[in-house]
Amino acid sequence: MSGIFFKNDSEQVGMTTPKERMMKLESTLSKITSVNGKFIEQAQKRLDSLSKPQGSLGRLEEFARQLVAITENPMPSIDKKAVFTFAGDHGVADEGVSAFPKAVTPQMVLNFIAGGAGINVLARHAGAEIVVVDIGVDYDFSAPPAKGGIEGGCFVSRKIVSGTKNMRKEPAMTRDEALKCIDVGIDLANEYAKKGYKIFGTGDMGIANTTPSSAIAAVLTGKSVEEITGRGTGINDDTWKHKVQVIKDAIALNKPNPSDAVDVLAKVGGAEIGGIAGLIIGAAANKAPVVIDGFISTAGALIAYSIEPKTRDYMFSAHMSQEAGHKAILEKIGLRPVLDLDLRLGEGTGAALAIFIIEAGLKIYKEMATFGEAGVSEKS
Amino acid sequence: MSGIFFKNDSEQVGMTTPKERMMKLESTLSKITSVNGKFIEQAQKRLDSLSKPQGSLGRLEEFARQLVAITENPMPSIDKKAVFTFAGDHGVADEGVSAFPKAVTPQMVLNFIAGGAGINVLARHAGAEIVVVDIGVDYDFSAPPAKGGIEGGCFVSRKIVSGTKNMRKEPAMTRDEALKCIDVGIDLANEYAKKGYKIFGTGDMGIANTTPSSAIAAVLTGKSVEEITGRGTGINDDTWKHKVQVIKDAIALNKPNPSDAVDVLAKVGGAEIGGIAGLIIGAAANKAPVVIDGFISTAGALIAYSIEPKTRDYMFSAHMSQEAGHKAILEKIGLRPVLDLDLRLGEGTGAALAIFIIEAGLKIYKEMATFGEAGVSEKS
Repeated sequence: MSGIFFKNDSEQVGMTTPKERMMKLESTLSKITSVNGKFIEQAQKRLDSLSKPQGSLGRLEEFARQLVAITENPMPSIDKKAVFTFAGDHGVADEGVSAFPKAVTPQMVLNFIAGGAGINVLARHAGAEIVVVDIGVDYDFSAPPAKGGIEGGCFVSRKIVSGTKNMRKEPAMTRDEALKCIDVGIDLANEYAKKGYKIFGTGDMGIANTTPSSAIAAVLTGKSVEEITGRGTGINDDTWKHKVQVIKDAIALNKPNPSDAVDVLAKVGGAEIGGIAGLIIGAAANKAPVVIDGFISTAGALIAYSIEPKTRDYMFSAHMSQEAGHKAILEKIGLRPVLDLDLRLGEGTGAALAIFIIEAGLKIYKEMATFGEAGVSEKS
Repeated sequence: MSGIFFKNDSEQVGMTTPKERMMKLESTLSKITSVNGKFIEQAQKRLDSLSKPQGSLGRLEEFARQLVAITENPMPSIDKKAVFTFAGDHGVADEGVSAFPKAVTPQMVLNFIAGGAGINVLARHAGAEIVVVDIGVDYDFSAPPAKGGIEGGCFVSRKIVSGTKNMRKEPAMTRDEALKCIDVGIDLANEYAKKGYKIFGTGDMGIANTTPSSAIAAVLTGKSVEEITGRGTGINDDTWKHKVQVIKDAIALNKPNPSDAVDVLAKVGGAEIGGIAGLIIGAAANKAPVVIDGFISTAGALIAYSIEPKTRDYMFSAHMSQEAGHKAILEKIGLRPVLDLDLRLGEGTGAALAIFIIEAGLKIYKEMATFGEAGVSEKS
């Protein structure tokens, strides 16, 4: 295989007890601080000395300020970039809520490994590596395909469930499974921060996963299921009505507690959503910026934000998704997307593109000449 | 000098007579055709076969379709990219309409040459070369600075005027000067298309140039000067009111004919705006995509569009500027910007970033695996 690197260490997670897992989460959360405003001011001072009208590079300047504040480094670097695509299946797919069959989840994971998916193309374009994480796919990848082709990519097996349960009939996961999923994300953030990766992107793959994402969004924003629920990969009016009913039934049956995000994740969430939430928590604990992809990733961000609101300071919203519930979550967290390109694919595709734009802001900050250096007169 | 390449061939333009210039423009315009819808359909067919839900990459798919249609090539390439930053001075700067002194125009040109400006950083980030064109700066660059540093950059001298006249007192340019500016843009498009450049970006530098751009926008969209006029590089309320009055006075004095875009360009426009209009016309005649930067570039695009509406098919609008009049022009032409990052710098900075996003669309189109190749099940 060219460049692809398989890791099977799912058992490692199993060795921790539920109590140890809770303690580890608490310890990770205790490391998360709000960013310090003095770094924002310091960065703005430099931005204002550059040979351009003050503020004229708009959000590029905002991105640079935020990177300085997150990393607490006056000259940060984001040269090593990784997009994490968490994959999981959903029992609720049995209710016929998606336009695609469930088999597509593992097929797409194999497509990521072979290098042919949207995220492969866009991560390569943005200079980011991709880390494909099997956290909950209902398929055995232990015999990986003989040929792969992602450059600098990595497939990791951290399977917590083989697909969630059908949340219309029972909780999607147990509380401990939900905590295990968060733990996988935290572990990956720690591992990649240690390896020198400076910016993370999130991504998802999981047939039917707009359904749990909509459920999470409805429970945690308090908006109606109708307002939150979108068309996913492309369903018609009748299937949409059915999907709304399925979400309402799942919430009515499982009664997720809106003031306990882990309970919401367990009862009406998904494994990949938990992994994304954990990655964000882990990024914040490591003072690393994390770029949140579209609707599913933002549902994961909402779980992370509900567990620890300070995680917001470390988040960039990659793009405005076409999914109806996305805007509601962004408003709840208080994020403005970098891009608005009518994307609704997931996988981390929007995150990869946004990383390029955020990096543009950092390069402006680091590489432009000041008025003095350039010999340019300042504003009169 | 490392990488910088000076060319002084402004006399070449002077050799053509006004009549020859008009004939050359007519001949260029006659080559411009609307794009053929069959290429759009052909591109969409391929996009729909790729391993993703149909339409799920939104505007990235739109960009790919448009590139296929523009180039009439089912597998187009935009590997060689050039951003043209046209620089010119404005007599109307004497009226005190800008926050910066007029000396900043040549100072910034020297900053481009030295590699320290925003456009240098962002063009490098996007893999585009920059071509800095002195088309109307009130400064003698014939003794270039001993040291330069843009990689793959080029400074070309095609000076048509040494700054325009003060349009509050007389026409900014003669009709023949305006035609010469357009001719410079056409020549550059022809030259760079011949050299194998596949996508062009536009940019501008010129202290006070939001003033002629606002005048052009008001005359050609029919909107009020108040509605169209913005804050430029950062003026206060009093200066803004004064700027509005200056624009009204210039329009009242010169009476530009709204049905004759060359007349508008001559009387209340600017040299760099004419160069940009010419580059767009030349790009369309060469079936090359052209990415329009912010407000000043879009004023140039409005001149090109008013001369030949078919040029629209070759345009991409890079970003939504913070300048008030920008939206009015985009609506008039019928363009939706790629980015919205609160930029208001000009130079081609937005164009460089947008080129990267447009290229992402093309890579999706060219590099993703189809459902069949990836072994992924299609929508049920």
